[in-house]
This record gives sequence, structure tokens and C-alpha cells, in this order.
Amino acid sequence: MKSQFAVLRLQKSVRSHPNLAARYTAAATATAVLVLLFLLLAPSNPSISTHHSLFLSVSSNETAARHLQALTRRPHVAGSEANAAVASYLIDILSSASIPARIVPYDVLLSYPVHRSLSLSPNLSAPAVAFDLVQEIYPDDPFADVAAEVLPSFHGYARSGTAAGHVVYANYGRVEDFAMLKASGVEVAGNVVLARYGIVYRGDIVRNAQIAGAVAAILYTDAKDNGGRSGECFPDARWMPPSGVQVGSVYRGVGDPTTPGWASVGECERVSVDEVVASGVMPAIPSLPVSSRDGDAILRTIGGQVAPEDWQGGEGAPVYRLGPGPGFLNLTYLGNETITTIQNLIAVIEGDEEPDRYVLVGNHYDAWTFGAVDPNSGTAAFLEVAERLAKLQKGGWRPRRTIILCSWDAEEYHLIGSAEWVEDNREMLASRAVAYLNMDYAVSGRGFHASSTPQLDTLLMEAAKMVQDPDNSSQSLYEQWINTDSPLIRRLGGSGSDYAAFVQHVGVPSVDMRFSRDYPVYHSMYDDFVWMQKFGDPLFHRHVAGASILGLVALKLADEEFLPFDYKSYADELQQLTEVFKSKMRGKPVNFAPLLKSIKKFSKAASKVNSQRKELEGKSFLSKWKKNPNEVRELNDRLMMTERAFIDREGLSERPWFKHLIYGPSKHNAYMSGAFPSIDDAIQRVTISNASEAWGLVQHEIWRVARVITQASHVLGGRLT
Amino acid sequence: MKSQFAVLRLQKSVRSHPNLAARYTAAATATAVLVLLFLLLAPSNPSISTHHSLFLSVSSNETAARHLQALTRRPHVAGSEANAAVASYLIDILSSASIPARIVPYDVLLSYPVHRSLSLSPNLSAPAVAFDLVQEIYPDDPFADVAAEVLPSFHGYARSGTAAGHVVYANYGRVEDFAMLKASGVEVAGNVVLARYGIVYRGDIVRNAQIAGAVAAILYTDAKDNGGRSGECFPDARWMPPSGVQVGSVYRGVGDPTTPGWASVGECERVSVDEVVASGVMPAIPSLPVSSRDGDAILRTIGGQVAPEDWQGGEGAPVYRLGPGPGFLNLTYLGNETITTIQNLIAVIEGDEEPDRYVLVGNHYDAWTFGAVDPNSGTAAFLEVAERLAKLQKGGWRPRRTIILCSWDAEEYHLIGSAEWVEDNREMLASRAVAYLNMDYAVSGRGFHASSTPQLDTLLMEAAKMVQDPDNSSQSLYEQWINTDSPLIRRLGGSGSDYAAFVQHVGVPSVDMRFSRDYPVYHSMYDDFVWMQKFGDPLFHRHVAGASILGLVALKLADEEFLPFDYKSYADELQQLTEVFKSKMRGKPVNFAPLLKSIKKFSKAASKVNSQRKELEGKSFLSKWKKNPNEVRELNDRLMMTERAFIDREGLSERPWFKHLIYGPSKHNAYMSGAFPSIDDAIQRVTISNASEAWGLVQHEIWRVARVITQASHVLGGRLT
Repeated sequence: MKSQFAVLRLQKSVRSHPNLAARYTAAATATAVLVLLFLLLAPSNPSISTHHSLFLSVSSNETAARHLQALTRRPHVAGSEANAAVASYLIDILSSASIPARIVPYDVLLSYPVHRSLSLSPNLSAPAVAFDLVQEIYPDDPFADVAAEVLPSFHGYARSGTAAGHVVYANYGRVEDFAMLKASGVEVAGNVVLARYGIVYRGDIVRNAQIAGAVAAILYTDAKDNGGRSGECFPDARWMPPSGVQVGSVYRGVGDPTTPGWASVGECERVSVDEVVASGVMPAIPSLPVSSRDGDAILRTIGGQVAPEDWQGGEGAPVYRLGPGPGFLNLTYLGNETITTIQNLIAVIEGDEEPDRYVLVGNHYDAWTFGAVDPNSGTAAFLEVAERLAKLQKGGWRPRRTIILCSWDAEEYHLIGSAEWVEDNREMLASRAVAYLNMDYAVSGRGFHASSTPQLDTLLMEAAKMVQDPDNSSQSLYEQWINTDSPLIRRLGGSGSDYAAFVQHVGVPSVDMRFSRDYPVYHSMYDDFVWMQKFGDPLFHRHVAGASILGLVALKLADEEFLPFDYKSYADELQQLTEVFKSKMRGKPVNFAPLLKSIKKFSKAASKVNSQRKELEGKSFLSKWKKNPNEVRELNDRLMMTERAFIDREGLSERPWFKHLIYGPSKHNAYMSGAFPSIDDAIQRVTISNASEAWGLVQHEIWRVARVITQASHVLGGRLT
Repeated sequence: MKSQFAVLRLQKSVRSHPNLAARYTAAATATAVLVLLFLLLAPSNPSISTHHSLFLSVSSNETAARHLQALTRRPHVAGSEANAAVASYLIDILSSASIPARIVPYDVLLSYPVHRSLSLSPNLSAPAVAFDLVQEIYPDDPFADVAAEVLPSFHGYARSGTAAGHVVYANYGRVEDFAMLKASGVEVAGNVVLARYGIVYRGDIVRNAQIAGAVAAILYTDAKDNGGRSGECFPDARWMPPSGVQVGSVYRGVGDPTTPGWASVGECERVSVDEVVASGVMPAIPSLPVSSRDGDAILRTIGGQVAPEDWQGGEGAPVYRLGPGPGFLNLTYLGNETITTIQNLIAVIEGDEEPDRYVLVGNHYDAWTFGAVDPNSGTAAFLEVAERLAKLQKGGWRPRRTIILCSWDAEEYHLIGSAEWVEDNREMLASRAVAYLNMDYAVSGRGFHASSTPQLDTLLMEAAKMVQDPDNSSQSLYEQWINTDSPLIRRLGGSGSDYAAFVQHVGVPSVDMRFSRDYPVYHSMYDDFVWMQKFGDPLFHRHVAGASILGLVALKLADEEFLPFDYKSYADELQQLTEVFKSKMRGKPVNFAPLLKSIKKFSKAASKVNSQRKELEGKSFLSKWKKNPNEVRELNDRLMMTERAFIDREGLSERPWFKHLIYGPSKHNAYMSGAFPSIDDAIQRVTISNASEAWGLVQHEIWRVARVITQASHVLGGRLT
């Protein structure tokens, strides 16, 4: 409108000066019209695609390798001096890429081992033998000089104390495993549980043991899950050496345990460790992780009933029995829980047109040991993304929206750094965050894997088609991906990495990506540069591909005029999830009709918004003149805010920190992404008390989920009732 | 940038055609520059102030009078056929003003009287005399023909049942009044409470009586609060006639009692009335409102100790005593609680530049009786605003932002219509609502009164300076206002009208305005057109002024490029509120430092945003070229979203629907705006149990309030940590 006014005024004013008019009118109007035409024709961003292909072309496996080597020279657990050195390295690289990073510190509860002892007697009358609990240096270990800096193997936030008892074998320590022990009449109460790693989160294994009345829990790596008993192991093979131990946290919450739901800044409110333990998110019994060798030794002292087939070890394993005893374990663990300062690093590339819309890219840099896979393969890819973006900036590129690069600290203690920052910036992120892209570790082998909130599925696949398969230059990453993974895209309800606070606490659309899902030296001292070079990514091409897909998704989200969100796939997924629950609850006194009805509304809104987008995109340069620039922003805001509507505002849920009513951790396995977690929790309660009130609560949760989906469809549709 | 590109291209292309070039180059560039200058000079909105003064000038007291007469021809309680007729009238007026309204229905629990009986014996051995409980038709009552349509006097949602007992006099029925009775050894348990209207919400009076063990509560209007005992009353004077009764709701929640926190749409989840009663928001004992005459008769049968001085009646009153008895009351009340369809009306004037930013203007139209004051004086003003805006539209005006006119139903039952709509549209309003402007009744006499969230204080005063005092044409409304009201602006924590859901459930900046606060015929059948003509607003100039101030504030919020919000006054108010609590808690084991610290941050952010605004406004048309239009939107979004940050997201509060942690209803008087309600609730609990845990909970609430204020300062400052 403005310019049309201007032209009219121009003509008026020209007329009002006859002499000028005589000479200029014709030329003036003609040219004015020309200028206007050019205004119309000027594409809003002439070179997005050019910049994006440039981003893909300036890759380098050499830099990724160099970064990884530098990052993994020493073990660098959160709170250590070595980890501070890693932070400085990151700051240096980012600033030399002219993307200055600021340090955002939080004072959080971390936990370190002070004393450990574990002894075993084959039976109460036999003498006890103490385990040395040491991960051994391997032949020609280049990191032998700093092996002493590796923390003694332990469980983060494990309960300090001494416990002794006969051993009971509990398979993978799942709820159903303990139920099976109970059914078999195996007494767990008063005894020590031996369980193997592999299926559920270690914090849940210890929790289940505690609930069953065990006095302590020992977690070991079973040869069956570590390449069998051929004896082949690192450095000759990718498998964990016999003395290797999987360290890790047994805390079941997210973020600093002493500040549930708020940021650990300055003189903030804190709850006591005793309260945290009482709430059930920190264990009340001591636990210790041990090697496959030590686990094997303990297993051989367990008598009693023979364990079921699927509880047995692999080929060449002894017969596993349930116990209790006669093997008798004596455990002492002393930990030091202490408030420690951690450092997140935040580096911002300000958006040119929409500086107040944020595309966040995150990776954590703290590691249990050397962290060549976890997390620094991701850190190397992250740094390469930064360096490639710096090259684009030199080429004159500026993103339409703001890109924020986040380096998280203390992820290993259970997502502490990212959760504190999200809690600290909750309201800002709730109103401005477009998406969060997470890369924990980037590479532990071949085969691309991705998880996301469903509106990003299409974008992920489109991006994967533009990136080359690092293991087969004749095909795209997408072609490799569809042949190796199923389901193609997983979900983000688990609390496996730093996306948790973004998705589950605030409702930010998110993605998590990596090459290869599991690897044998996970959280052990053998997760080092040598392992990566030999087995993880010898040519570092997977690092490069990781940086490419991560950066490309970020660029598309930051630069495209319309946010590349597709809510149809979200609607389809909600439909499928509901069908699953429905069939699971067939014959039960619950009604899923409200949920299905709300999903129908949501699906309609999703189709509508997609066609509105097409219509707007399709506007020719002529009709574009009539297009209100606000229409674009309004549509994008709807796409951005819809995910937020899945966040619970009614309150009173069983796990109040987990506010997302579509995705949240499955109650008994934090690794697993649960669907409709509040409904699932209510169903779990019914299995305990089958009262009609209990079923009423299930129905109530179904209603609550239906209500947030209805709110989401209002937001997506952009309509008030 | 775009246009500069274009010019360069223009020159290039012209050069590329030599013949054309020869003739046009000079002229072209010259004119192009001219055009660009005009583009720069074109003011973003040439005539805002013109439109706004036009809005003030096209006022008419005749239309307001005509509307009020039409609206109040018959009693029209929510759910009645007469109220549906009022809705059609509103729809007609709005559509003839070419602002079509849509009906948004909800199915909610309403309550109607079926049977009432109340009898009194001076003592147990004397015969009982029954009250007729009828409000009498007055001499020459023009509405005598429809007097039968007035609902029998009752309490909305009163408990059905029969109760009998000796009478106890409880003054205004406040917590402290019952405490005093207890201290005086007056037995309330098992007896019937007689309390006078006037200070606390009637629902809280009945609640307090119930907690004290009373079997029923009778609420009456004391002559002392109704012009004394001169006998002068309506229609000769403004005072309530002796048979007049204040009807009203005794429900202590907000919105449909059966859908707490969600919308009553279609086949939605509902909680049972028994659950609602058990939760304490609906009374468990029967109650009835009575006239001053009946109250007087009951008082005269009460013996026992003489009541304290401030419990006595006015001049000529008998001596009030505490009882119990000998007077004995026998009450039967039968009500019909039934799900009824109500109709909100929503009329939209779409914004030209920011259609997705909403300025909402609301008034309810349902009335207990004729509703000449409450609410239809406000409805008449509301309609006049609509008709004046229609005139502006004919003059070519379109608001920058969307203006939404809301006519609420069932407000009298306790904000039912507005609360259901806000719950229904919660997420949309949370991300798009700029402000909500409420006018319940507009006029019950002289003297302007306003309440608001503090960032709107300045705007209110500026607008009042532009409106003429309806009672003294030689001065502005502002000059009259500052001389008649103190504090000048009150707050919106009470649940007195339809702003409650906007402020307390979602965090939308809001205003509530009216002329004169109290009036004697409140909620009685004498609140009719005759009373308004004789005593409320004989010339209807106050209606006109009400429409002017309401509409002008809406126009400024809808049209000004920068939202006229000032958070400095919010910061100052937070500081004062904290000081009050601090001195109240002197010597107690609580620390207000965290709160004061967060307020300091907030205050800094408020000053900063104000200067940023000035800077942006100050940009000249030349530097304006460098101004990113997004800067304006970004600043406005910060101003809009800051109030939202005061909404509790941690949950677990004692009154979960009331989510605003700065303003909420005082726990024992819904009329009163409480400050820091969650802290206040915790302090109330301490008075019951002085345990250190209880003090810990007070401190916890102080921390929570400090945290939302910190979140608000992040949003206002637009900065991530």
C-alpha cells in the first residue's frame, strides 16, 4: 500500500510544479512503475540454495579428526579441570570462526566416587575375595599416561553405604524380571541383586531392585551383549575388554536434582538430597557397575533354580541360576555429592530478518572418560558445522532467523547443563524457539539414525536426500538410511540426551541424530580416539556427514521463508498411537472416543495449514503485492507454537517436570520414548489397584490428552472459537 | 535492502539497452531516488489521531439510553428465554454496525430456585412465623407486568436441604468475625448464622459459616449499609426498599463448576456436583439472602451477649446481640442444578497490519433481574463503542491490530461464560492477546473508578485526560478521577468480573472500568431503568463517557505502532507489595531477599525497554530506512508476553486454577484483590500450624514468585542467559 500512496503523491507533487512536470511526468511515471516492478520481482532471499549447497561442499574430514583428537586427549568428566580445558578449546575454535561464545555457568549437584570395595565369597563359610574394580590399560595404549585421570568406575548419584547379602540374578532388571523372580518364589528382599546392562536405563534397574527390597545392586556387562566369548576385544576388535566397565548415572530425574523445575543460579532455592531420595528419583540403596569378567565370577556363585532360557548367557556361558546365594557379596560405596560449577557455552549467529526466532543446535562436551564417541564425535561435528557457517558468513550469508549453537556441560550426570539452561530461559524459549537440533555423539559406526517430533519428519528426509552416504558415495544418506533403519524415525520421549528439556519441559520441536546406535565400549575407558580411528569412523567421513545433515537441517529451518514443518505426519502418528492404546485396552472400562475426535480436528487443521502455505508460496509477484508480510509470520508462528500446546497446563500430573502429554519417558525405562505418558502412568496404577476410581483416572488422563490436542488444533488453525 | 537492490538492477538493466539508456538514465535515477524518498517519508499510519478524536466526537447519550431501555425491558437471567432475546438484540445491533457477531455456546451448570421457606420463632416455645420472601412492586412500577419473571430471591449454587437452629449473629461473616464469636464462647456449631452483606463475597460468608459448623446461613442487607433508617427508599430515593434482596452466587470458583480448567464443550469430561462440594468451592450447607426488613426481624429475636460496637447497626437500630437464640430459624431451600446452554457473542474487527494480535473488549449481558446498572449500563456503553467504531470504519479506518468485542453470558453465576471461552482458547490467547478491557456495569452513579494490571496505568491516565468529565464539562475525566478516587488505580486479583480468567488463568494485561463502585439496589429487582434514569445517570452522559474511555483505550492499544505499556509502574508496585509483606512478616523466619533481587532485575529491564522504545520511535525517516520492521514487532512481543511470565508453570499450588503469582483473589474474600496469593495462602497455613515446615513452605512460595518475576525480566529484556 505504502508505495502505491507514494506513487500517487509523486504524480501529484509533480503536477503541482508545472515546469518540472513538463520535463519529467512521462519519464517519472514510467520509471516509477519500473522501480515498483523491480521491487516486486526482487526475490526475498536470492541465494539461499546457493549458500546451502556451499555449506555441503566445504566439508572436511581432516578438521573433524583434528578436533576429535584434541578434545579426547584426556578424560574430562563434568566439573574437572580437564573439562574446563575442553571448554576453552571450544571457545577458541568458535571465536576463530568469529562466532563468539559466552559461558553460562550453573552451580549443580554432581557426584564423584571416594571409596569402593566389593568382595565375593562362594558361600558364607568360604573366605571372601575382593575385586580390584580396575579397567586395565591395553597394549600400546597411547593414553596410558593419563589413565589414572579416569574416574574409578561408579554410578553417578549412587547411594553411599555398606551392604551385604546373598546374590540374586535379575536378568536385565526390568519390572517383569523382578515380577518373574517373585513368581518363582526367589527372595530378593535383604539380598544383593546382580543384573545385566542392556535394555533399561541403569537408574531404573537400581530403582526396581530397591522396590523389590534388595540391599544393593551390581550391574555388569554380559558377554552375550559384548560379542560373545570369543575373547576378541579392543584393541584388536571393537568389543569391550573383560575389565571394561560401563559407568553412568543412576539418577532418574532431569537436571540438577536439588532444583527440580528451576535454574541452579546463584543463591537459589534447593531441596535436600534426602528429599530427592525420598521422592524416588535418586536411589536409596548403594550400587556399583562391574566388568563382564567380575559379573561372570559372581554368576558362577549363584545356585538355586535354573534361570529361564532368555535369561541365560550366550554360547559357552555357564548355566545362569536365580539364587539367592550361596554366593555372598559385600559392597561398600562412598561417594561425594557436591555442588559444582558447570559451564554451558552459548554462541549466537543473529538472524537478519527474524532475530527473535531461534533455531538451536546442541551437543554436550563432558565425557565419563575420553569420550571419543560419546560425546566428542558429536562435538567435532558441531565444531565443523560452526566452521562451515563461518565460511558462509564470509560469503555474505546471514540467516533469516537466529541460529544458536549450544555446548552443554554435565549431560552425563543426566542432562544437567541443558536442563538448567532451558529452565532458566523457559519463557523466552516458549515464545521464540523454532526448533532444537541435538547431536549427542555423532558416530559409533555405520548406519544413520534419527529421532524427532513428527512435524520435522519430512524435513529430515528431504535433507538426507541432499547429503551423500559416507559409506557409499554412489547413493544419498537417505537411500542408506531407509535400508538400514526401521522405524525410519524414532521419537523423543526418552530422556536419553539434551533434547529432553526442550521437548518434554517446554514443547520445542526437536531432532536427535547419530550414526550407529549402540557400541560396545559405551561409557568405558576404552571409548577413546584409537577406538574411533580403528572401528568407529576410520576415514572420519561419517563425522563429515553428521555435520552436513545437522547443519543442513539447521540452515533450512533458519533460512526458509516458511518453516518446513508438516503436521500431517504428527496427526497420523497420534492416530496410530491411539489405535495401539485402544487395542491394548480392549474390553477395559475406558473410552478413547474423545482422543480420536480431537485428533480428527488436529488432522483437519494440519491439512488446512499445508494448503494455506502452498497458496501463499504460490502467490505470483503480481498478487504478491497484495500479500501481507504478516501472513507469513502468522503462519510460521502457528507452526512454531503448535508443539507448545501439547504441554500440560492443568497440572497435577504424577511426574510434574515432564509436561509434554504426547511424549515422555516410559515410567520404568527412561531410555524408552513413551507415548501419552500420563495415560500410561494411570494404566500402570490400575495394574496395582483395579478399583473403578483407578479406571476413572485413566479416563481422566485420556480427556486431558484430548484437550491439549484440541488446543494444538486451535493454534495450528489459527482460529478462536 | 530490497529496494536498494532493485535500483541497482534498474540501472544495470537500463545500461544494457543503450537506446533506452540514452533517453532515460538521468531521469530514471533521479525519479527512482524521488520515489524512494517518498517511500521513506510515507508515514506508517497517516491518521490515527484523527480517527481517535473522531471516535470521541461521534458520541451520543440518546443511543445509550435507547439501548439500555431495550436491554432492560424484562428480567433476563442466564439460560432464560428473555436472555436469549437480549442476545438477539445485541447480534442485530452489531450486524447493523457491520460488525457481525458469532454465537459461541457452552453447556454449563447453572442453578435455579425451586422452593424456599423460612420461618422464625422468637423462642422454641413460641409459634413460628413464615417470611414471604417477596420483593414488592413499587408505586407506578412500569415493570409490574413482568415482575413475576424475576427469579425468587436465592443464592446461585446454594445447597438444597432443610436446616433449623437458634440464630447466631456473625456481623459481616468474615474469618475474624467467626474468630471473635469463638473467643466470646458463642456456639456456632449446630446453629443458623445470620450475617450482613457488605464486605466479603457472599460465597465466602457461607463458607466461613460452614467451617464454623453452622447448619445454614442467612444473609441480609443492614439498614446501616443502605442509607440508614430514615425510611427513604426507591423510587423516592436511591436506597433499597425494605423488601429488597441482594441475590447472587455463592460459588467460590470461576467458570463452570463441573469443568474446572477446561471448556464445557460438547461431550466433555465433567466432575460431579458432590466432588465440587467436597472440594469446598460449592457450599455444603443451605443459605438464603433476605431483605433488611426480614433481617431486622430476625435480629430482634437474638439475645445473649451484646455485640461489639462495630458490629452494631446504625442510628435507631436495636441493640445487636450475638445469640445463640432464643430466636429459632427453620429454613428449607430446594434448587435445581442443571446443565444449561449459554451463549457468548464474539464480534471481530480484523487488524490491517497485525491481524494476529488481539485487543479484546468485554462486557456481560446476563442479569439477575432487569440489570439496568448490572450489567446493561455496560452493555449499552459496549454497543455504543461498536457503533462508533462502525462510523470510523465507514471513514476508512482499519485498526492495526485485531479488535475483538466479547459479550459474555452467565457472568452472574460467577464468570461462567468468559471463563469457559478463555479456557477453550487458552493457548491462542496466551500467544496472541495484547490486552483485555472489561466493562461490567458502566454506571451506578458519579465518580470514575479503574483497576488494571500495572503496565496499563499510564495508558489509562493518558486516555482519561482526553475524555470529558460527564459531570463537569470544564474538566477532563482525569481531573475528576484524581480528586475522587484513592488509590487511583486498583488491581485485578479479585474475581469480581470477567477479567478474572484473562488475568489470573492466562496472564493477559487487563483493565476494568466503571462509574461509581457501590449502589444500594445491587442484584435486587429494583436495579431497573427507572432507578438508572432517576439516580444512576439521568442524562446518560456517564454512559457516553464510559464508552469514550473504554473505546479510546482499545483504539490506542489497537492502533499505536508501539504498545503503550509501561512496566516501570509494575516494578514499583512489586517493590511496594514486597515491602508490605516484609513488614508484616518482620521477625518471622522468612527471607524476602530473593524476591527483592528479582524485582531489581525486572525494574532494570523495564527502564531498558522504555528507552529502547524511545530510541526506535525517535528514528528519523532517513535512519528509518535502516530500521528493521521486525524490531517493532520484537519489542511489542516482549511487552505483550511479559505478563504471561507471571503465570505459574511449576504447578502444585493450593488453588491451581488461579495461576497468576502476583495477583489472585484473597483466600477468604473473592472480592478482594490479593497480592502474591500463593505466599499469602502459605502464611494463612502457618497461622494454623506454626511448624518450621510451614514456614519452609512460605519461603518456598517466596522463591516461586521470585522465579516468575525473573522469567518476566528475561522476557521483557528479550535476552537469553
